[in-house]
Amino acid sequence: MIRERIKALQELIRERGIDQYVIPSDDYHSSEYVHEYFKCREYMSGFTGSAGTLIVGKDSAGLWTDGRYFLQAEEQLKGSGIVLYRSGEKGVPTIKEYLTDALADGGVLGFDGRVITKSFVDRLFASLNERKRGASDSVTLHYDEDLVDKVWKDRPALAAEPAYELDVCYTGESRADKLARVRAELAKREADCLILTSLDDIAWLLNIRGGDVAYNPVVRSYLLLEKAGGILYMDLKACPPELTASLKNDNIVIKEYHAIYDDVQALDDGVVVQWDEQVVNYALIQKLNPGCTVVPYENPTLLFKACKNQIEVENMRKAHIKDGVALCKFLCWLDKAVPEGNVTELSAAEKLEAFRCEQENYRGQSFEPIIGYGAHGAIIHYSATEESSVTLKPEGFVLMDTGGQYLEGTTDVTRTVALGELTDEQKKHFTAVLKGNLNLASAVFMEGTTGLNLDFLARKALWEMGLDYRHGTGHGVGYFLNVHEGPNAFRLKAATGRETKTPFVEGMITSDEPGVYFDGQYGIRLENLIVCCKDRMTEYGQLLRHEYLTMAPFDLRAVEPSMLTEEEKAALNAYHKKIYDTISPMLNEEEQEWLAQATKAV
Amino acid sequence: MIRERIKALQELIRERGIDQYVIPSDDYHSSEYVHEYFKCREYMSGFTGSAGTLIVGKDSAGLWTDGRYFLQAEEQLKGSGIVLYRSGEKGVPTIKEYLTDALADGGVLGFDGRVITKSFVDRLFASLNERKRGASDSVTLHYDEDLVDKVWKDRPALAAEPAYELDVCYTGESRADKLARVRAELAKREADCLILTSLDDIAWLLNIRGGDVAYNPVVRSYLLLEKAGGILYMDLKACPPELTASLKNDNIVIKEYHAIYDDVQALDDGVVVQWDEQVVNYALIQKLNPGCTVVPYENPTLLFKACKNQIEVENMRKAHIKDGVALCKFLCWLDKAVPEGNVTELSAAEKLEAFRCEQENYRGQSFEPIIGYGAHGAIIHYSATEESSVTLKPEGFVLMDTGGQYLEGTTDVTRTVALGELTDEQKKHFTAVLKGNLNLASAVFMEGTTGLNLDFLARKALWEMGLDYRHGTGHGVGYFLNVHEGPNAFRLKAATGRETKTPFVEGMITSDEPGVYFDGQYGIRLENLIVCCKDRMTEYGQLLRHEYLTMAPFDLRAVEPSMLTEEEKAALNAYHKKIYDTISPMLNEEEQEWLAQATKAV
Repeated sequence: MIRERIKALQELIRERGIDQYVIPSDDYHSSEYVHEYFKCREYMSGFTGSAGTLIVGKDSAGLWTDGRYFLQAEEQLKGSGIVLYRSGEKGVPTIKEYLTDALADGGVLGFDGRVITKSFVDRLFASLNERKRGASDSVTLHYDEDLVDKVWKDRPALAAEPAYELDVCYTGESRADKLARVRAELAKREADCLILTSLDDIAWLLNIRGGDVAYNPVVRSYLLLEKAGGILYMDLKACPPELTASLKNDNIVIKEYHAIYDDVQALDDGVVVQWDEQVVNYALIQKLNPGCTVVPYENPTLLFKACKNQIEVENMRKAHIKDGVALCKFLCWLDKAVPEGNVTELSAAEKLEAFRCEQENYRGQSFEPIIGYGAHGAIIHYSATEESSVTLKPEGFVLMDTGGQYLEGTTDVTRTVALGELTDEQKKHFTAVLKGNLNLASAVFMEGTTGLNLDFLARKALWEMGLDYRHGTGHGVGYFLNVHEGPNAFRLKAATGRETKTPFVEGMITSDEPGVYFDGQYGIRLENLIVCCKDRMTEYGQLLRHEYLTMAPFDLRAVEPSMLTEEEKAALNAYHKKIYDTISPMLNEEEQEWLAQATKAV
Repeated sequence: MIRERIKALQELIRERGIDQYVIPSDDYHSSEYVHEYFKCREYMSGFTGSAGTLIVGKDSAGLWTDGRYFLQAEEQLKGSGIVLYRSGEKGVPTIKEYLTDALADGGVLGFDGRVITKSFVDRLFASLNERKRGASDSVTLHYDEDLVDKVWKDRPALAAEPAYELDVCYTGESRADKLARVRAELAKREADCLILTSLDDIAWLLNIRGGDVAYNPVVRSYLLLEKAGGILYMDLKACPPELTASLKNDNIVIKEYHAIYDDVQALDDGVVVQWDEQVVNYALIQKLNPGCTVVPYENPTLLFKACKNQIEVENMRKAHIKDGVALCKFLCWLDKAVPEGNVTELSAAEKLEAFRCEQENYRGQSFEPIIGYGAHGAIIHYSATEESSVTLKPEGFVLMDTGGQYLEGTTDVTRTVALGELTDEQKKHFTAVLKGNLNLASAVFMEGTTGLNLDFLARKALWEMGLDYRHGTGHGVGYFLNVHEGPNAFRLKAATGRETKTPFVEGMITSDEPGVYFDGQYGIRLENLIVCCKDRMTEYGQLLRHEYLTMAPFDLRAVEPSMLTEEEKAALNAYHKKIYDTISPMLNEEEQEWLAQATKAV
């Protein structure tokens, strides 16, 4: 089946004289999660992992994916004739190196220009040029056709879930006020209009939500914002009349989703357009009237959206109390249910989801739950399937990374629970991770500090034991939006974008999630969301600190108290006391007793 | 007098049709310290601070300097007619902004192209272009004349101190081996030759030293290194015959200093030249045969030089033991001498220098000593003069930041000493700085970690008290070379260059110098040099840590032990015990007793 699909595509590229055709995993909006319609790479290769790029030549096909997916890809590519390129392994060419080689003597590179960014194309051309030590114009691009669409007969339709307005009691700022702030920023940059294509930025700016991407309550759309009005390009049938009217009130009119491509071509000469070339797709950039000037800075919405206002922060606290109630009920239930048998990774996830569903304004999960028992806990991006799901036994660790969407905000929490007796070593590992979580969260720091400066705090105790974790320490989180959001983060190294380069500002919400993983044995991760708050103002500047938002106890049965400093004990006890005081009134008697035990001072 | 000099220059620039003439503080090599010959800005303006730029227009003259020098510049510019631009103050244009304005409608910008880098010119043109939203070719450059030279009648001659070879017993690596390593790196970069203009890089690569810049034992020179041989451009009379012969042995020939400008013009078409555009001067870059290709990466010498080899590290330890003996003798003397009166900031510096001079292979100070008593200690870049030097009284703090050059290495150490009773608050401040010094030095960290990730450790205790210091936490240090050397450093923010972006590697030597300053009262800074060493190898990678090189006790009379954690006490006591064990055998009885007191366990 896969062989036939590849063959059909190869016929199409041969007809068009294309040498290499690139199929990434993206949608038109550089989204992290994409709708079924956009799963071209999965359809063409049979590989279902979240990350991967397929490159099809006239007589070749190769798939690039990373270490998380080597085994899965090997399995799923069997018999397809597609070569697996293990990204990051020694001797394996990167996509850029592969294409630089394949197109060294010129040729035609094909792709759907709507699913590739300009920066990808720029980097590839830089690499081709470097190789040639001079201008290389001999590679031509064929980017205006989606060839997979011609092969994919039963392709799902584009998502068009109903969009709706999020009330100002949730957003804390009216659409008009947000538009005014963004327009003031555009004026500063001497730009006439803003083109936004990232779905969470559009949702934030217009106070709209939808359901066009799993876990992310966004609306499939583009926005062209002008000095006075603006145009929202979306599926017309997904916009109910009351939303159309409300947008109209703020001079935002609705147009058909794809119409933006013609509209940017028709912009007047001399118009100054602001957009983010790291995000906007290549096809849209190519369509722009060449008489326009581009201000290629980051979208002003990025930082505005990241700094939650007071009402958003208050709501986020409420969301986390509700989430905490669900989590505490679940953890109490888990302690009883596991010894009775019949709790599996999948059924535990269902149970937690059921507890969350009992909470007001719950709107579903914020990402696919990761519930990994024993050795599954060591697989960082594990997600249980019917085949893999195992029964939880009253021994060892279970790692549970889940999150919810509420009208009051987005949650993301990981708890690792001891289901039975632990070894001393297991307790040491758990306590080292806990120390990292506590120390990062309790740091007081000067304005100007970035996530690069603080990440060390989360790793220190592990490094001293010769341990580490192969993932970042924390990511920004949206307000009833995407669970991964920039630009704030905790990282050791600056990523390619502006992640971690932006100093922390009051209202930023970030995850704090150190961990440690032992292949084939167990994994431990402890994740809280934390919100940046003002501390003292000094003559050197504003001091800042973080506060925990997440409201669920860390499993004291896994803690080795002698490893904690007095400060760490005080921080842990204060956190647990706050949880008990806040959550216990919403629990039944049995759950209250459980929580009292779970939050007792160490 | 200054007025006449400015007038004479204005006549020259009018004759040439120049609109703005820029006079920075630099030499031809982007050196941090420069020889008297290069002090054009000082000669033309009368302002003697280390940092400043003079810009002279047909009827105007302005001097830019930073906060350290506002008072001094105000004083020294009085009556000169030169306008003081206080860099960093609100509403004060930067040099780039000033020139962008002044040259908005085109014009001629003048400067001596040998004292300005290409990156300065590039940034200025980028700013001019941005302003115009299009290509701006209307500004022309007049860069091939040193007009100050025509005004400066009694200008000192260029330095030409005798150069000499540094034996491999000090450098740990022969010139031939260094050349081979650098050439292998050039081959990787597909470069045919390397042009080095930074004096410390040349000195390191060729194992030569000299005395052409105060405090920095370097030779005024340029180097053109080719695949087989190389040319060292320097003052011919400064190269003794034995050095000429030794260099000849490694196929390095000597040519007259200025000849490189003609030689780069005469390079064959197609030659690939490696040089660092951040460092090489504009005039030299303009002279290069346009048929050559440039590889503008950082010099391979930068990282090689920063990672000291085993012999260099061993020698550095020896240098620090000798420096420690001098410091301990001095500190013991100070405790006795101050109550007796007649110790001034200047005489204390002389006394310390005398103790250092007693040490074998001592070659002078590594920078101008900073000895600041009381309120002078709060002036970060204070340097006592005959006018400012005060007598040390048996009360309060004296801050002493000094360093020495030895054949075995370069030292840089700051001790703040309690000369009498301290208040509780003073002790708290001292102890907070000490905590920062200890915690930064004792961190265990994974390979890949940079100074951005660790800086926080030095500030944590101060930030928690609402305090901070307005300087970086640490800089790289050369081996019997410049006391400031890249790319390793401890910083909160990445500087414009590659400083702090380079991960720590075994053998890097960095200063660890947190501080705290109270205007008009006192300053505290505690500075040790630390060397990066390997710790455990783990499955996650190589763990690293630092070791103290500096060998002088922290003043325990200023420490509040209750503020120290058990780990901090253990680190302090272990450090002090090591000092006692190492240094006391080289002291007399009285000094031994003093050291035993000064290093007793807390």
